[in-house]
Amino acid sequence: MDLGHPAPVRPGGEAIARVRRLFDPALRDAVSVLHPWGARMAAFTLGWSDVDGRSHDDGGGKGLRPAIALLSAEAAGGEAEPALPAAVAVELVHAFSLVHDDIIDNDERRRHRDALWKAYGVGPALLTGDALLALAVSQLAARPDAMGYLSSALVELVQGQTADMAFEHRSWAGPDRVSTAEYVEMAAGKTGGLLGAAAATGVVMGGAPELADRMWEMGRDLGVAFQIVDDMLGVWGDPHVTGKPVHNDLRREKKTFPILAALSARCTAARELSAILVSGATDDDSVRRAARLAEEAGGRAAAQALAERHLAAAMDVMDAHLPAADDLRALCDSLVHRVN
Amino acid sequence: MDLGHPAPVRPGGEAIARVRRLFDPALRDAVSVLHPWGARMAAFTLGWSDVDGRSHDDGGGKGLRPAIALLSAEAAGGEAEPALPAAVAVELVHAFSLVHDDIIDNDERRRHRDALWKAYGVGPALLTGDALLALAVSQLAARPDAMGYLSSALVELVQGQTADMAFEHRSWAGPDRVSTAEYVEMAAGKTGGLLGAAAATGVVMGGAPELADRMWEMGRDLGVAFQIVDDMLGVWGDPHVTGKPVHNDLRREKKTFPILAALSARCTAARELSAILVSGATDDDSVRRAARLAEEAGGRAAAQALAERHLAAAMDVMDAHLPAADDLRALCDSLVHRVN
Repeated sequence: MDLGHPAPVRPGGEAIARVRRLFDPALRDAVSVLHPWGARMAAFTLGWSDVDGRSHDDGGGKGLRPAIALLSAEAAGGEAEPALPAAVAVELVHAFSLVHDDIIDNDERRRHRDALWKAYGVGPALLTGDALLALAVSQLAARPDAMGYLSSALVELVQGQTADMAFEHRSWAGPDRVSTAEYVEMAAGKTGGLLGAAAATGVVMGGAPELADRMWEMGRDLGVAFQIVDDMLGVWGDPHVTGKPVHNDLRREKKTFPILAALSARCTAARELSAILVSGATDDDSVRRAARLAEEAGGRAAAQALAERHLAAAMDVMDAHLPAADDLRALCDSLVHRVN
Repeated sequence: MDLGHPAPVRPGGEAIARVRRLFDPALRDAVSVLHPWGARMAAFTLGWSDVDGRSHDDGGGKGLRPAIALLSAEAAGGEAEPALPAAVAVELVHAFSLVHDDIIDNDERRRHRDALWKAYGVGPALLTGDALLALAVSQLAARPDAMGYLSSALVELVQGQTADMAFEHRSWAGPDRVSTAEYVEMAAGKTGGLLGAAAATGVVMGGAPELADRMWEMGRDLGVAFQIVDDMLGVWGDPHVTGKPVHNDLRREKKTFPILAALSARCTAARELSAILVSGATDDDSVRRAARLAEEAGGRAAAQALAERHLAAAMDVMDAHLPAADDLRALCDSLVHRVN
């Protein structure tokens, strides 16, 4: 993993572009049933329009979750089209969670522009998040075989977010400190559940329901890897590329994996890092020093290693069970080896 | 309807108490899977504990939606027990919507105590609302015959809430003014959808799916009647009994039915009411005068008449299709003839 040197063309990029052409009209169709005001806010948060409702396609999000759903259907030997409702559902859940997260975290910026609540107010944004979730559920309401995974992902998502929020109130040192095992459980829920649902609902709708439980586990491993990389980008990523302010997590006492791993080392850097964090200092100098000490204490290397390990576990599932997983493998690889 | 003189014992009260004894453990069981922090906030908002987590049962909400689900199952000739997941699902959706509504409307009080966001903060409360919704969906994920109605109710709920919010930005007079027909459509979504889902999922789980579409329509009629009565209580109810500050809706430019109906009259009182509302005055004297003028202009009588008409339509469905609807009829009657 080389976070500093993005490859100009990502592996799997063509397959993503192909399934995205399938997916975009299906997503727009799903959102079109909303009340005009809700549809306008949804279009803003999905990157389709500016704050005044003028069409302005900035590409929106990365569309990774729907790509996992559609490429999983193909990887299992099926077609992507029948899995479109699953792809739409997981993207809508993702969009819902971003809208609510930005309110919860008081984050003003998202994808290089205003967060939805900043643009339209907390109440309207909260309600738009709810609307996106309602639409997500409606996509799979008639398919209990897929709905079970979506529903489990929703419960895991809120449980993981609650755990993540509870971690912020726990101290950096002492017996109350968050363990890396607790982190992995939280990340498997917060991030892994929805990736698991994408992969599982994709193969269910694509005609291979017998693979769904394995794909659910595959997605959860992928989610842990993805979240750890997210954490690394939050400490050592380039904010111009990620679109997020640097060191935000450190300032907020977010218990991210690289920092937890660094703190568990027995070395001078780890002790110095702990002292800064326990002091609660959030000035630029202190957080920059904390980031450097975390790397010195091995936090970055440990995070990279654990992300690779979870990616490898996901890859093993694909190797063992999917007849045509090349595009899906490339996509999963790119999720972990990314710069934003 | 006599809003001023509550009957000491409500008709249907015994049946409600009976199904409530069935329902309460099922709801507690559903909520028990939450993260401890989320479970504590859920227990507070459901009325089971005080803000410090100490057990303190204040009876919680009225439990009307689960009672509709369970009594619908019985009214259709089935048993209440199999409909418990439906009853839990609709109560959780109701709880979710109250938690989010209080954030959206900036309401600090609910059921004579702090709103959840006031007690624990906006972020934690928002997330708890999401958790309640996720649990609701999980109750019926394996039952597509019931899930379809729950999912439709969720979409209708957010659409109705969005319409209600959009109404606040429209003027009281002139071509942009909200019509009573628009109001009825909004109320059928915001309030009727979930009552429709309660009745429809109740008969589906109770073994009479052939009645579900009719029960959905029955619930929507009931919802319109219920919402109109809510509006009336907001203008002329006793705040000590309702637990809500009086004239809040008027101060917020909520477009409630009694006011819209009063404004559509052609009389001096209607013109004077319009003048006050257009002026934007929200002092105590002005809103008290507005309430009196709305009654003079016939808004209260029109609201009562329309609530009775929608209740009668719901009763007609029960008469025509349900073999054992006595308890359900009594419950529905009490929803419209209530003081809080």
